[in-house]
Amino acid sequence: MTRLAALFLCSALAMPALADDLRATGDLGVVVERATGSVLIVDQSEHAAIGRIEGLGDLSHASLVFSSDERFAYVFGRDGGLTKIDILTQKIVNRVVQAGNSIGGAISDDGKLVAVANYEPGGVKIFDADTLAELYHIPAEGKALGLEDAPGRRFVFSVWETGESKIVDFSGAEPKVTTLENIGAEPYDALVTDDGRTYIAGLFGEDGLSAIDLWAEVPEAKKILPHYGRGQEEMPVYKMPHLEGWAKAGDQIVLPAVHHHEVLWIDSRSLEETGRTQVHGQPVFAMARPGGRHVWVNFAHPDNDTVQVIDTMSHEIIGEMVPGPAVLHMEFTSRGTEAWVSVRDANKVVIYDTTSLQPIGEIAAESPSGIFFTARAHRLGL
Amino acid sequence: MTRLAALFLCSALAMPALADDLRATGDLGVVVERATGSVLIVDQSEHAAIGRIEGLGDLSHASLVFSSDERFAYVFGRDGGLTKIDILTQKIVNRVVQAGNSIGGAISDDGKLVAVANYEPGGVKIFDADTLAELYHIPAEGKALGLEDAPGRRFVFSVWETGESKIVDFSGAEPKVTTLENIGAEPYDALVTDDGRTYIAGLFGEDGLSAIDLWAEVPEAKKILPHYGRGQEEMPVYKMPHLEGWAKAGDQIVLPAVHHHEVLWIDSRSLEETGRTQVHGQPVFAMARPGGRHVWVNFAHPDNDTVQVIDTMSHEIIGEMVPGPAVLHMEFTSRGTEAWVSVRDANKVVIYDTTSLQPIGEIAAESPSGIFFTARAHRLGL
Repeated sequence: MTRLAALFLCSALAMPALADDLRATGDLGVVVERATGSVLIVDQSEHAAIGRIEGLGDLSHASLVFSSDERFAYVFGRDGGLTKIDILTQKIVNRVVQAGNSIGGAISDDGKLVAVANYEPGGVKIFDADTLAELYHIPAEGKALGLEDAPGRRFVFSVWETGESKIVDFSGAEPKVTTLENIGAEPYDALVTDDGRTYIAGLFGEDGLSAIDLWAEVPEAKKILPHYGRGQEEMPVYKMPHLEGWAKAGDQIVLPAVHHHEVLWIDSRSLEETGRTQVHGQPVFAMARPGGRHVWVNFAHPDNDTVQVIDTMSHEIIGEMVPGPAVLHMEFTSRGTEAWVSVRDANKVVIYDTTSLQPIGEIAAESPSGIFFTARAHRLGL
Repeated sequence: MTRLAALFLCSALAMPALADDLRATGDLGVVVERATGSVLIVDQSEHAAIGRIEGLGDLSHASLVFSSDERFAYVFGRDGGLTKIDILTQKIVNRVVQAGNSIGGAISDDGKLVAVANYEPGGVKIFDADTLAELYHIPAEGKALGLEDAPGRRFVFSVWETGESKIVDFSGAEPKVTTLENIGAEPYDALVTDDGRTYIAGLFGEDGLSAIDLWAEVPEAKKILPHYGRGQEEMPVYKMPHLEGWAKAGDQIVLPAVHHHEVLWIDSRSLEETGRTQVHGQPVFAMARPGGRHVWVNFAHPDNDTVQVIDTMSHEIIGEMVPGPAVLHMEFTSRGTEAWVSVRDANKVVIYDTTSLQPIGEIAAESPSGIFFTARAHRLGL
């Protein structure tokens, strides 16, 4: 066989494989396997795992964000590891251990900068999204957390020890840092509303939340919901609810109560409390189905085998499921027809139809925690 | 060379090509070239066209929707053609001419059904999204239009001659049609709010708009904004503004006024008018930058070379650009950092930075009209 003939044969052999191997990324997702330092790549349409990537370090409190084109995910490990994975080739593209202990990250609205919040040493590091080259270090006098992206190539984060929030603006040639002091004692987590306008930090050291209007000419922190918090009770920090699991449902914001078996309904305009719903246990995530018709809630140990569904018009519980031991996270398909639920101690992800509330599929996974679908690439404040 | 050796060589040759040809779909888009019956496939990150697909028939008033995985687009031509294109292989997958004259379509929230609104014969046809096999025909006593998807595998459309809206529910074994009579005279276009809750139809035959709460147990049409419309003035129908270009900006809805050089600000909760902004010409689209910080407006002939940008907090115009003759459409990147503007008579798409309002790129296109980015696959009511 001549070389030309071999090439001809090759092209005949390669072409069909090539077309078949093409894959769109709009229905893909990444499931964190916390115990094994690995992630599963999943396909929503197929209700299946399509690959596993290993070697990502300590993923015990891991989260991730997606590149603008949905091809890459940036995985933030608890051990300070920042790993860029390619969800199409299902390989690690790059990995840096950029700090001793870190707690989440974000990607700028233009997709060019990846930021990581660090405990040790404190502050935020900024990386080139292409190369993972470190571009900037934004120092802080303590643990950086509650790191969120904001419109206009900005990031916002808070500092546990100093009770500050910092807005870092990368729209110019050099980063510009604005520090807001005295936002409250021991901020521990934060969210940005889905319009990118309001940064809300939860406080461990006092009741109430801190809100910053990022559209204002001169942003200021103001205290909202003065009764939100643990009150006088002692409680361990690991039971604080996740604020990124907040839900905006129509004109309402839904927040998991601290320590109490309740979710709180907040008027999204006045930011005042309008009601409470009694739930099965201490809520961890209260997440709105896209569109906001229902809110799904999961719970802290020992009630963490259960998920409840609340109607946002009546504030009543309309469904309860028991997916299994240690329900850690839930993620909706982008138009809300399915909810995927990670059940850590059953080593599976259970897929629910959000209309019938019946399980319609499941996927084996090693101690799954966070589930992240690629549509997140298109949302603000994640 | 043995066959085995050839295969080995093939795999060595094929692999690199395969990896390079993989492409994520999150930053892709489709630009309608109305005069030539073709579409451009564009890459947002590259600021470039990456392919052209021809043979789509009459695209003079064309729109399209994306499959859930962002791989396919369903193009609705004016001539009744429904064409399924593969944006990765850049080929037509299937094409049916399903009616004599049609005006837009939608895809169900679960991605399984594609619906097309037809003028001749009137009504809506439902197709299998995989195969384009016709599954159902929902008849109407006139021209069907304002077809939108709604949560729960539903579609909503209106009928010009009879002044009805119809809700078609495909969540059960057979479609269930609910007809709302007397919504108003001559509905001509409609929108569904981004939470999937409210269907709003514009009326050509009388002033005001018709609103339906799709979350209600028994949906009813009610009249809102009684002064919205053309009033007593005679005007040709082609100047009616597009309602799908409506903008929800924080607590406000922004609507292009009919015939007047104004946009209207509406309280999103009370649906009452709260203000007006004088603009350059008769607005066609008033579109919110994702997050709602600004609204971009384009205009009808003879003012259609201009785009204005309005601040949603102050209601003041903060920028004006002149992209060129016949600005037909605008599309934002999903987190709002860029706006892509089609300039039909300059045969180009101009890309603006939404912060500086400066052009940062352009792409040659034949008489471009609608620009559609794949992130639409993840939104309700398109």
